[in-house]
Amino acid sequence: MWRYRELLPIIDDKHIVSLGAGFTPLIRADKLARLIDIRRLYIKNDTINPTYSFKDRPASVAISKASEFGVKIVGCASTGNLASATAAHAAASGLGCIVFMPSTVESEKIKQASIYGANVVLIEGTYDDVNRLAALAADRFGLGIVNVNLRPYYVEGSKTMGLEIIEQLGWRLPDRIIVPSASGALLSAIYKGIEEAERIGLINSTTVAMTCAQPLGCSPIVDAFKKKLSEIVPVRKPTTIVQSLAIGDPGDGYEVLKVVRKTGGTCEAVSDEEALMAVRMLASETGIFAEPGGAISIAVLKKLIDQGEIGHDEEVVCCITGSGLKTLEITPPGQNIHKTETKFESLSILLNNITQLYR
Amino acid sequence: MWRYRELLPIIDDKHIVSLGAGFTPLIRADKLARLIDIRRLYIKNDTINPTYSFKDRPASVAISKASEFGVKIVGCASTGNLASATAAHAAASGLGCIVFMPSTVESEKIKQASIYGANVVLIEGTYDDVNRLAALAADRFGLGIVNVNLRPYYVEGSKTMGLEIIEQLGWRLPDRIIVPSASGALLSAIYKGIEEAERIGLINSTTVAMTCAQPLGCSPIVDAFKKKLSEIVPVRKPTTIVQSLAIGDPGDGYEVLKVVRKTGGTCEAVSDEEALMAVRMLASETGIFAEPGGAISIAVLKKLIDQGEIGHDEEVVCCITGSGLKTLEITPPGQNIHKTETKFESLSILLNNITQLYR
Repeated sequence: MWRYRELLPIIDDKHIVSLGAGFTPLIRADKLARLIDIRRLYIKNDTINPTYSFKDRPASVAISKASEFGVKIVGCASTGNLASATAAHAAASGLGCIVFMPSTVESEKIKQASIYGANVVLIEGTYDDVNRLAALAADRFGLGIVNVNLRPYYVEGSKTMGLEIIEQLGWRLPDRIIVPSASGALLSAIYKGIEEAERIGLINSTTVAMTCAQPLGCSPIVDAFKKKLSEIVPVRKPTTIVQSLAIGDPGDGYEVLKVVRKTGGTCEAVSDEEALMAVRMLASETGIFAEPGGAISIAVLKKLIDQGEIGHDEEVVCCITGSGLKTLEITPPGQNIHKTETKFESLSILLNNITQLYR
Repeated sequence: MWRYRELLPIIDDKHIVSLGAGFTPLIRADKLARLIDIRRLYIKNDTINPTYSFKDRPASVAISKASEFGVKIVGCASTGNLASATAAHAAASGLGCIVFMPSTVESEKIKQASIYGANVVLIEGTYDDVNRLAALAADRFGLGIVNVNLRPYYVEGSKTMGLEIIEQLGWRLPDRIIVPSASGALLSAIYKGIEEAERIGLINSTTVAMTCAQPLGCSPIVDAFKKKLSEIVPVRKPTTIVQSLAIGDPGDGYEVLKVVRKTGGTCEAVSDEEALMAVRMLASETGIFAEPGGAISIAVLKKLIDQGEIGHDEEVVCCITGSGLKTLEITPPGQNIHKTETKFESLSILLNNITQLYR
């Protein structure tokens, strides 16, 4: 992502903390496109990042800036993915690190963040509680919280996903970009990247239908959009297994509504079951294994096509934001696991059955 | 990795199956280098691949070739990582897929492979049993087993790691490359890439000390090297938690010995504890989270430095071959996980203690 260095707010190169985040593959998914009946579908695969989610982008910029500011301890309020991104970049830079998460976050994400040596503080509350406490802690203890008091720099990292989509399509935009949304910062940052690309002449227009995807158990932005409100009504108690998107009071919700309305996009929510089905469909049709919060863009695409709200002739980019290895616990395994003893006779009987399925 | 397309054995571009494997970051790890007292250390971070291990490289080439040959069902014998790489590329290409693994493989790897829709066959035996049965199955059922009857194409994929190291260092070689070794195919393939780069004039020499890293519980190549044998004595029952390197009868062991001796490299083994310590050291010093079989190159580097076999003035590249998210179950968590209620008073007491550690 540092190929866009001139558009990123770091003064001196020597402060850049990079683990090689970004410039993830944009994969054309023809097999999946045929299955859900859309003309052209691209997957922006941000599961392939240093800590396996798009959060490495904002963490890389925010921690570079923290380093430039001379901050000694960084941290974040996180639904899981940002914790590891922050901890890993802090480890690489040598800064102290304290990450704050709700205690209900997936065990994989808690363990991953702890491996990088950060102090992991689990708070028995919602993400919004965590965020509020992290803000207070930032003040009292002089912490650089990447998505609180370093937030202006943090969001600049996420805009690189928009710049990459443009570059990887050959300096042009698709008809639509679907973005999994928690705080909403990713969607608005992608669009900021698009606007900047237009302003400096990399593309000629900003015409793209920005589309917001949320889980039904925590969809405050979708609700506001559907009710044509201009303000977000926070969800007090999110009820979804899609932990990474369980932000009841989205900081950038207002901005998302503005961008979606301005660009002629839409907002849609799906059930946990639809999100899990999308994980499986994405994996078996494209070979990309996402967490439910990452694959939700596929679930929303399918729903919008089925409802006739997206035309079959569109060219769509779905952002896939985090890896399925981070949520193995809640992902049901495939129904295709067989066990056999070490004898070719036993194996042959099994393979006779399996190979027939493929003929 | 398909930037080296001219060096890869696919005739027609239309058969290429790519998920964007390869061209992974080569990260300069100054903090870790200082800790273990070596002049310059680079990490070749192959945990950032479509299925989170270097195996996506050989799988991409082998399945492209299977597609070119018109094979209908592909598969592999796997210690875990190759299963997902094969399953994912088969999913993307639409080929049928049956992967064979020992039933003792980490649960994360079994589940991951199953998500891509492949048939996962767990065999109650060692990897060598699995390999033998997969070879028989290939014949009987006409399967394209990527690391058996497609092996000549498979190894071509792995050589791209060598080509990338050369390119990312600015078209030159380091003093030493340390490679985690199971069958040994990766080490010999990296060196094949180096030889080809020299032959076509990308570099002027092939001087680099190729170094093989194995776990003590399954170190047939290291044993043969230390005993100055020219043939490998297979390990009948591997006893190591490093499942991904538990191949008792390494197919390319002979070739590895030849390359290591020819290049003035060495072979070394470490305990499971040393491998796990290397996981933690790598994560907390560089922000890269590897499985024990991936971080073992760091453990071997440290051991060789401590033993005085590697000079402090060397420039070393350590290959990190697979992600720590694939072996969370066997990786101990950090000792820095705290829990607190949703009150700033409680949090403040905790943070008073934590922040003092950083001052």
